[in-house]
Amino acid sequence: MGASPGQLIVPEDAPAPTVRVLSYRADGLEERTVEDLSALREFIEAPERIVWIDIEGFGNRSVLEQIGEALSIHPLAMADVVNVPQRPKAELHDGLLLLVAQMARVTHMGIVDIEQVSFVLGSGWVASFQERPGDVFDPVRARIRASTSRIRQMGADYLMYALIDAVIDGYYPVVETIAGVLDALEEQVITDPSHASLARIYATRRTLMNLHRVQWGQRDALHAILRDEEMPFSEGVKPYLRDAHDHAFQILDSIESYRDMVVGLIDLHLSSSSHRMNEVMKTLTIVATIFIPLTFLAGIYGMNFEYMPELRWHWAYPAFWASVVGLGAGLLLWFRHRGWIGNQPEGD
Amino acid sequence: MGASPGQLIVPEDAPAPTVRVLSYRADGLEERTVEDLSALREFIEAPERIVWIDIEGFGNRSVLEQIGEALSIHPLAMADVVNVPQRPKAELHDGLLLLVAQMARVTHMGIVDIEQVSFVLGSGWVASFQERPGDVFDPVRARIRASTSRIRQMGADYLMYALIDAVIDGYYPVVETIAGVLDALEEQVITDPSHASLARIYATRRTLMNLHRVQWGQRDALHAILRDEEMPFSEGVKPYLRDAHDHAFQILDSIESYRDMVVGLIDLHLSSSSHRMNEVMKTLTIVATIFIPLTFLAGIYGMNFEYMPELRWHWAYPAFWASVVGLGAGLLLWFRHRGWIGNQPEGD
Amino acid sequence: MGASPGQLIVPEDAPAPTVRVLSYRADGLEERTVEDLSALREFIEAPERIVWIDIEGFGNRSVLEQIGEALSIHPLAMADVVNVPQRPKAELHDGLLLLVAQMARVTHMGIVDIEQVSFVLGSGWVASFQERPGDVFDPVRARIRASTSRIRQMGADYLMYALIDAVIDGYYPVVETIAGVLDALEEQVITDPSHASLARIYATRRTLMNLHRVQWGQRDALHAILRDEEMPFSEGVKPYLRDAHDHAFQILDSIESYRDMVVGLIDLHLSSSSHRMNEVMKTLTIVATIFIPLTFLAGIYGMNFEYMPELRWHWAYPAFWASVVGLGAGLLLWFRHRGWIGNQPEGD
Amino acid sequence: MGASPGQLIVPEDAPAPTVRVLSYRADGLEERTVEDLSALREFIEAPERIVWIDIEGFGNRSVLEQIGEALSIHPLAMADVVNVPQRPKAELHDGLLLLVAQMARVTHMGIVDIEQVSFVLGSGWVASFQERPGDVFDPVRARIRASTSRIRQMGADYLMYALIDAVIDGYYPVVETIAGVLDALEEQVITDPSHASLARIYATRRTLMNLHRVQWGQRDALHAILRDEEMPFSEGVKPYLRDAHDHAFQILDSIESYRDMVVGLIDLHLSSSSHRMNEVMKTLTIVATIFIPLTFLAGIYGMNFEYMPELRWHWAYPAFWASVVGLGAGLLLWFRHRGWIGNQPEGD
Amino acid sequence: MGASPGQLIVPEDAPAPTVRVLSYRADGLEERTVEDLSALREFIEAPERIVWIDIEGFGNRSVLEQIGEALSIHPLAMADVVNVPQRPKAELHDGLLLLVAQMARVTHMGIVDIEQVSFVLGSGWVASFQERPGDVFDPVRARIRASTSRIRQMGADYLMYALIDAVIDGYYPVVETIAGVLDALEEQVITDPSHASLARIYATRRTLMNLHRVQWGQRDALHAILRDEEMPFSEGVKPYLRDAHDHAFQILDSIESYRDMVVGLIDLHLSSSSHRMNEVMKTLTIVATIFIPLTFLAGIYGMNFEYMPELRWHWAYPAFWASVVGLGAGLLLWFRHRGWIGNQPEGD
Repeated sequence: MGASPGQLIVPEDAPAPTVRVLSYRADGLEERTVEDLSALREFIEAPERIVWIDIEGFGNRSVLEQIGEALSIHPLAMADVVNVPQRPKAELHDGLLLLVAQMARVTHMGIVDIEQVSFVLGSGWVASFQERPGDVFDPVRARIRASTSRIRQMGADYLMYALIDAVIDGYYPVVETIAGVLDALEEQVITDPSHASLARIYATRRTLMNLHRVQWGQRDALHAILRDEEMPFSEGVKPYLRDAHDHAFQILDSIESYRDMVVGLIDLHLSSSSHRMNEVMKTLTIVATIFIPLTFLAGIYGMNFEYMPELRWHWAYPAFWASVVGLGAGLLLWFRHRGWIGNQPEGD
Repeated sequence: MGASPGQLIVPEDAPAPTVRVLSYRADGLEERTVEDLSALREFIEAPERIVWIDIEGFGNRSVLEQIGEALSIHPLAMADVVNVPQRPKAELHDGLLLLVAQMARVTHMGIVDIEQVSFVLGSGWVASFQERPGDVFDPVRARIRASTSRIRQMGADYLMYALIDAVIDGYYPVVETIAGVLDALEEQVITDPSHASLARIYATRRTLMNLHRVQWGQRDALHAILRDEEMPFSEGVKPYLRDAHDHAFQILDSIESYRDMVVGLIDLHLSSSSHRMNEVMKTLTIVATIFIPLTFLAGIYGMNFEYMPELRWHWAYPAFWASVVGLGAGLLLWFRHRGWIGNQPEGD
Repeated sequence: MGASPGQLIVPEDAPAPTVRVLSYRADGLEERTVEDLSALREFIEAPERIVWIDIEGFGNRSVLEQIGEALSIHPLAMADVVNVPQRPKAELHDGLLLLVAQMARVTHMGIVDIEQVSFVLGSGWVASFQERPGDVFDPVRARIRASTSRIRQMGADYLMYALIDAVIDGYYPVVETIAGVLDALEEQVITDPSHASLARIYATRRTLMNLHRVQWGQRDALHAILRDEEMPFSEGVKPYLRDAHDHAFQILDSIESYRDMVVGLIDLHLSSSSHRMNEVMKTLTIVATIFIPLTFLAGIYGMNFEYMPELRWHWAYPAFWASVVGLGAGLLLWFRHRGWIGNQPEGD
Repeated sequence: MGASPGQLIVPEDAPAPTVRVLSYRADGLEERTVEDLSALREFIEAPERIVWIDIEGFGNRSVLEQIGEALSIHPLAMADVVNVPQRPKAELHDGLLLLVAQMARVTHMGIVDIEQVSFVLGSGWVASFQERPGDVFDPVRARIRASTSRIRQMGADYLMYALIDAVIDGYYPVVETIAGVLDALEEQVITDPSHASLARIYATRRTLMNLHRVQWGQRDALHAILRDEEMPFSEGVKPYLRDAHDHAFQILDSIESYRDMVVGLIDLHLSSSSHRMNEVMKTLTIVATIFIPLTFLAGIYGMNFEYMPELRWHWAYPAFWASVVGLGAGLLLWFRHRGWIGNQPEGD
Repeated sequence: MGASPGQLIVPEDAPAPTVRVLSYRADGLEERTVEDLSALREFIEAPERIVWIDIEGFGNRSVLEQIGEALSIHPLAMADVVNVPQRPKAELHDGLLLLVAQMARVTHMGIVDIEQVSFVLGSGWVASFQERPGDVFDPVRARIRASTSRIRQMGADYLMYALIDAVIDGYYPVVETIAGVLDALEEQVITDPSHASLARIYATRRTLMNLHRVQWGQRDALHAILRDEEMPFSEGVKPYLRDAHDHAFQILDSIESYRDMVVGLIDLHLSSSSHRMNEVMKTLTIVATIFIPLTFLAGIYGMNFEYMPELRWHWAYPAFWASVVGLGAGLLLWFRHRGWIGNQPEGD
């Protein structure tokens, strides 16, 4: 942590960077994987073309430094890009716009994975950086490849918007997955309020909190872009950005209502667990309340006093049984009357 | 979700659109269902008339696109209208005011249903869009049909206000219904603090949260309209808008006090359920505390020691019974003294 | 609710309106009950006199409309006055200041009753409206009748202030009543944590919440008046208004500290109720822990094994009693050591 | 409460006012108790001298009114001074600065006592008012009496600062006392979670809330003074005022962390009380679980069936004892394994 | 506490001050421990050199006063430096920037220790003050000693930034340590929800609260520096400061998510402890519910009625055993069916 400011700290297990370039204009498209980084300069200086430089993998520090130099990105901006994770933010560095965002995805194992993706918007080009391969940009690529799409008519700022929009829209399926998890947990909490389900509720709560935090940051960054006159977005693109901003807000709304649902689940867990305790105690009480007095009665006639006239009566034993059964039945009726047994009034 | 921005996503099961037009001036009124969408243009360009275009049903994408074109509504605004649900908001797009609102209604089954209704205010016309037929605008239609009503003297901005006001006033009966549900739940929680009632409390809480969220959004949108000088409302209509804004605020107040009541109900449920537990435990304790010592006593005289002088006394057995009854009665008195039995001091 | 805006909705059971006029200047005073509403105009146009028009009872719509017209009050302002309850607010309508306030009083049955009172301040006159007779203005009337009082030297804005001040000061006894209720509840919660007391705590909490809401609104309205340059208050009256504003703030402070006290009471109720449960369980445990082992011991010597040498020993029975008493005493001492019995360490 | 505005309401049991004057300049000092109030005017008009008028005791209304007149204090300002308690605030009245503050002290009985002290800053003089004798200003008096101290070189605004600073610094020992109380309560809650300790926790919480409220008000008032250009403080004194403001903030920080500690104590009380319940229940369960089956076993061999072969076996009785001891020991081991008995794993 | 403002209060047990000076320019470096304080003046007036004066130990008041005079630091600023602890803040005093910060470190015993460190930035020099030796500045010293590092090319404002950055980055390992503590506590809470673990949870919560408070203050101070035009930082250094500000924000994010985790742990403790109670109660209920009825049965046949035909049947005793075993097994199956015993459905 005693590193100089602006120093790139490369994660140990990250894959080596690959640089793909997508260069297009209304009537042409070129896709290429770039090996020679010095060629980047040419790409971004090509007139009349919009260039998307897509960098995946942070496994090689010097390559990243070369990319930063080729694109004239400020060292501190490069550090924000590489030294993940950072808070989402939008900053201007020497005329280039740096936007740090967070992609959310659900992995195979149902875990929500948040990965930083950073964008740099220059004049006529956008560079996107992410630590590992795999992203949410395939629909954007498809739209670029379709020669009639709007994206082919517009500038680099619209490309930037389209990428941000893809990141934000990527939260919708994540939030829906969590909704499903919460429904399953609700079921489970009522039938079996175990420690394991409580732990899962808290894990979901923490996931929601993380999603809220990063999405809130992204909404903030978009808000800052919309408000700031110096941001390199044309008037024609701003309504689209505002649309993306509204989407971010809607996702925040959903996240908040799921957070509220989690609070309800925790209360329900508590109530469900105390309900089970109630059931246990009621069982004990019913059994003990019926049999302890009866046992006393049996104890009476097990005493060895010499003078106990009942012992000699002929009908004493049947009468004893009759009173035992009568007492037991009476208590059962009383318990039913109090709602402790019978048609499950506790709504199990 | 990888759709292009501004793309209309039509719900699968939505009914086909019907377009009704209500065109009026102080001295005349025309109502029509429009089939040929190109006629819309004529309507809105008719001088001196106020036109209300009422579109219900989102079942056909191309029809919606044609309507959007006929009324020159920006594609992003049309997307906000059609791709429900959106957050309530007020936005200007090329001189047209888009207002996204949410109607609330109670269905037959007592469920609160929130449906988006969007308004576009142009020069001399208002268009209203909703996904399904059925709305809260009948009083507005009745007022338009009454030739002496104020609405016939005023411009399209007043019509817009009247529609918003109808949406907001539609929350009053919804909130009253919820008040009734809460009263019933309070009753139920005290008599039978079951899981089912807790679940209903949480469901009501979520409904209130949703109502609060959308109503808050509407209040915000109205506030933005009142504050923003560019909004196409005349000075004569602004006091009415402020009135609608105050109504929205009042409804928010009610919702907040019901949310507070829900918090109270949850605590009451907890207390009620622990009260029942207390009752169960007291029953057990009273029975066990009386009979366990007595059973011990009976056990004593059931022992088979050769030398137990009491066994041979003639009055031993009656004396045993006397002491049993005395001990039992003493314990009952003690329990009564402690308030565990008797005139129900727990205020059940 | 589908009513036109500005329509007066008269409560069904409200008494018919009575209009009393108090017209004064430094050297003269006239009090009258007005039947002929057209005379109102004359009153308010009388030069050099301050006029207080005091309207009580909303039972007749047309009378209220005539009053509104006679005083030139905007229909929306009249609707805010009549269609109770509204949020407290201060609004200018065509040069007249409308202030909606809420009077709080404690009824005979100890219930806090909140009733709307609205003021309209014109040039040289103040009109006050309330739904039912009975108000907090008697001290103001007394001050007006005293020819030497400051109120007789000042303008209509000072009269308006005096009325608002009376409304706000009327909260002090209400808040004190609630303080008394809370003290009684605290006593009750410790001695008898019943459902009924919990319900009363929640009722008090709701009352406090309502008082807070309306008082907060009044404070806001006063703040708006103080901040807004256009409000028709002279510089000489503003310090008085600021004083009333400070009183409103102080009452809010009290209400907030009582709300906090209510939170403490709810916790105390929970703790008190679990304390009682503890007492019950301890009783059960003490009795059962002493007698169950003893009963076992008695059971041993009630067995019918042929070879049980103890049964024949002469001192066996006394020895049995000795060990029973010894065991019982030992357990009692142990319970005392653990603090379960004896000098009530639970602080009952 | 129906009093005229600006009317002084003298507390019934307050002592009669004493007026002490401390008049000084760099090279001279005069201390006097003033009986003739008309002399006050002379004091404050003495050129080149700084005058501190120290009024203690509100027991005489006309004396207070004379003081107000002699110092030309606005009647509403005098009402704020005398009609305690008021919220802390800073207000300009006709060029005089009124500052209402609250002194906090710990009484002999360990109760925190909050008393209002008000300051009026005029040109060359400061007046301080408090209801009862006894204050926190002795260090200030000592500094004034020391002819070399900075206070002797500076103006009345510095004197005002020094008094405010003494008030704020007086909160440090109060907060430390509360810290001690909380430490003692923490100890007590773990060893004996009684009702009494819960009540003391809530009392401490209320004290902290009151301290927070008044200190927050004082911080606000100081902030207003620092921000407002019209306030009669010279540039040389402002850094000192900012210092006092920082102290107020620091005390607020401490209060907030103690409030947080109180929340922890309430939770600890709950946990401690449920821990004791756990202990009780475990004792019951251990005893019952061991002896109830054994009693059953003894019951078996107390039966009177004619054909029970075991009864005649010679080793049956010793074998019975052996199995009883074995069963008991086995259950004890099982309980120990589950952590219910033995090396106190509950961390009592 | 009655001290004059600006008076230095030296902690009793603090070590004597040592003053080390690090003076450098791009091509030269000088490190020295200064004994003669009058030499300080020369150092800071040396042209073209950046000077870092590193003062450790507050044990001697007059030495500190001499340092303050030599560096022309305002007495109130010196008081903020010496009278620890203060809230983090940034203030300009006569052209010098005072920044009060708080260093956090984990001690050997795993306790988080927060120590104030203050910086004064003059023209060409930075002074750092701390109460005790031992700091987080070694990486900064190393970078200064490396002749090629950026710090050697930049001015005193960059040195100031580097020191602040070191302070803020020092929070990362602290926060990680707490994360480890929380993981261990989570483990412990599930296996053994003792009082001790609850106390440790609350201690961690308080630590997090303190860290949050000081870090929030530092973030605020940095924000104030960035926003305030008068602050003596060049444009080239501002992006670095913004970077440090972002780091502070990120640490706050982590602290907040750990605070949330603590809330979850407290709930888990409650749930874990009630789970254990449930286990205890279930054990009691199972044993009692099985054996109490069986004991009653045995009691029946221990009675001494003369006429009890079953007693004479030959198979009665074996039949008794059969029914006992059958009843017991039936109850066990029923308990298993209800999930009270068997494959641990409570997810322990």
